Amino acid sequence: MREWDIIELLSSVFGITEHDDCVLFENDEDFITLCCDMLTKDTDFPVGMTPYQIGWMCACTSLSDTAAMGAKPLGMLMGIHLPHGTDENFIKGLAEGMADCAKLSGTKVMGGDLGTQDELTICSVSVGSVKKEVCARRVGASQGDLICITGYLGDAACGLNLVLVGSKEHQHCEEYEKVLIKKALMPTPRTREGQIIAPHCSSMIDTSDGLALSLYELLRQNSVGMQLDKKSLPLSDALVACAEDHVLDMALYGAGDFELLFTVPQELISELMTEADFEIHVIGEVIEAKEVLIKTESGLERVDKRGWEIQV
Amino acid sequence: MREWDIIELLSSVFGITEHDDCVLFENDEDFITLCCDMLTKDTDFPVGMTPYQIGWMCACTSLSDTAAMGAKPLGMLMGIHLPHGTDENFIKGLAEGMADCAKLSGTKVMGGDLGTQDELTICSVSVGSVKKEVCARRVGASQGDLICITGYLGDAACGLNLVLVGSKEHQHCEEYEKVLIKKALMPTPRTREGQIIAPHCSSMIDTSDGLALSLYELLRQNSVGMQLDKKSLPLSDALVACAEDHVLDMALYGAGDFELLFTVPQELISELMTEADFEIHVIGEVIEAKEVLIKTESGLERVDKRGWEIQV
Repeated sequence: MREWDIIELLSSVFGITEHDDCVLFENDEDFITLCCDMLTKDTDFPVGMTPYQIGWMCACTSLSDTAAMGAKPLGMLMGIHLPHGTDENFIKGLAEGMADCAKLSGTKVMGGDLGTQDELTICSVSVGSVKKEVCARRVGASQGDLICITGYLGDAACGLNLVLVGSKEHQHCEEYEKVLIKKALMPTPRTREGQIIAPHCSSMIDTSDGLALSLYELLRQNSVGMQLDKKSLPLSDALVACAEDHVLDMALYGAGDFELLFTVPQELISELMTEADFEIHVIGEVIEAKEVLIKTESGLERVDKRGWEIQV
Repeated sequence: MREWDIIELLSSVFGITEHDDCVLFENDEDFITLCCDMLTKDTDFPVGMTPYQIGWMCACTSLSDTAAMGAKPLGMLMGIHLPHGTDENFIKGLAEGMADCAKLSGTKVMGGDLGTQDELTICSVSVGSVKKEVCARRVGASQGDLICITGYLGDAACGLNLVLVGSKEHQHCEEYEKVLIKKALMPTPRTREGQIIAPHCSSMIDTSDGLALSLYELLRQNSVGMQLDKKSLPLSDALVACAEDHVLDMALYGAGDFELLFTVPQELISELMTEADFEIHVIGEVIEAKEVLIKTESGLERVDKRGWEIQV
């Protein structure tokens, strides 16, 4: 079964009708946000990843979902299943990575669960809080809104590729290798950025599954289309130097950037740009036709619906 | 490393000083409670357990932790990692078990995370709410308080044993087999009971790791001792009929009952007994000496510090 078929089956049994990065609980003027992300060695922790990087990555995933609602993190839990024989230093490094990533987002790990399992498995849980009136949802984008993103596209996918297959000792890549690998293994949750963007955006989602799938999810939830402008895509010098013929592919379909993708009504963009002390890239516009398109040198092309997607 | 050594290491890195069944967040006059429990096929789902029972059990674990704080559940998340090839009926059964157990506790599954993994792995997350003034903690027991428990001891361990090694066709056991196996595979979270007990108790914990370990945890947190009275231990007819020579062993050390263990000041016990429309068994008394003892026909004996405990 494909991921979406399973989500639909589960949603139908559970009676879930809304899909956001976090679940929301009413709390007077606020929403409490809650999310969990489960990571495992074979899927999420490439060989060579240090315990510290593993812990950091686990914390990042649920903090990124919290950021995508514009919420301030209140605390985290970590469900940790360790293989027998895991040594003390590994556990210490893992915990330090979690603690440091949480600290960067102004929060901490407050508890969790502990067990044993052949394959290292970690469930990262984050709880946050956001004023109802500014909470960012996936629903809300309208035709004409600008499509925006924090940071750069494809760097994590390129970095992961360097980890998995090694650098090809391309002269121009060597100097970028470290920064790309760091982006792949220790992404930064956009916690502060999410809270600044939320009051101005019409919809938001994180790009953990890749830009294309995130755009298709906004399309699905808003019954609108998305049109990118290729020349506006933020591509880092590092990506251009290291991704060879795959630059556009990694930018559109590469997962793991953990950037925030959001739409902003045109009349609000200058106010947001003034308030934001971080890079925001306008990469396209919400359109009526329910398609994800990209304007290139040779005209409008369709963006594939692919990226990080599980199949059972 | 032993479980407690790992918990101490993690707590020291994270700066955690309090250990309860749930983590607490301040919310005006209330605490928000949050907990997670991660379960895996090889450890938690014996062969023959149906998808429905697996889903039910997963929901029960974190609901039981929520109950142990006296909190009302607000919602649940489920992180679900399925092996490749899992079929639709399995997923549907799993979800229905989760949904029905949640419903029994007046709540529902509102979201989660989905992935693939060789070994079926599920992280059950529950959030709840409880008035600060009645929230039950592990800390609070004083010398002279009565030690109480909901339900019966050892039934889950006995039921699990029947699942794993089969019944010995003991004539008196046959009629109890179903009820014991149900207790092992589909325990009932004591959600309602926890909310009724909390205003009257001085400390509370669930017995998912077994009675003995739960008593030792109360000892550790309160710097007091616990003295049980063997003739007061609630032993079901089913346990007596089926556990053969292991009745007391299963009652003291068997895990998985998911009952609530709590201490009550003597002057509050009659008021609680009047209010409670469910069975409460007084099984002993909090003592000064920091030991866990049991009064038997032959005098006072020490209760071992063993039960459900992981070792990495």
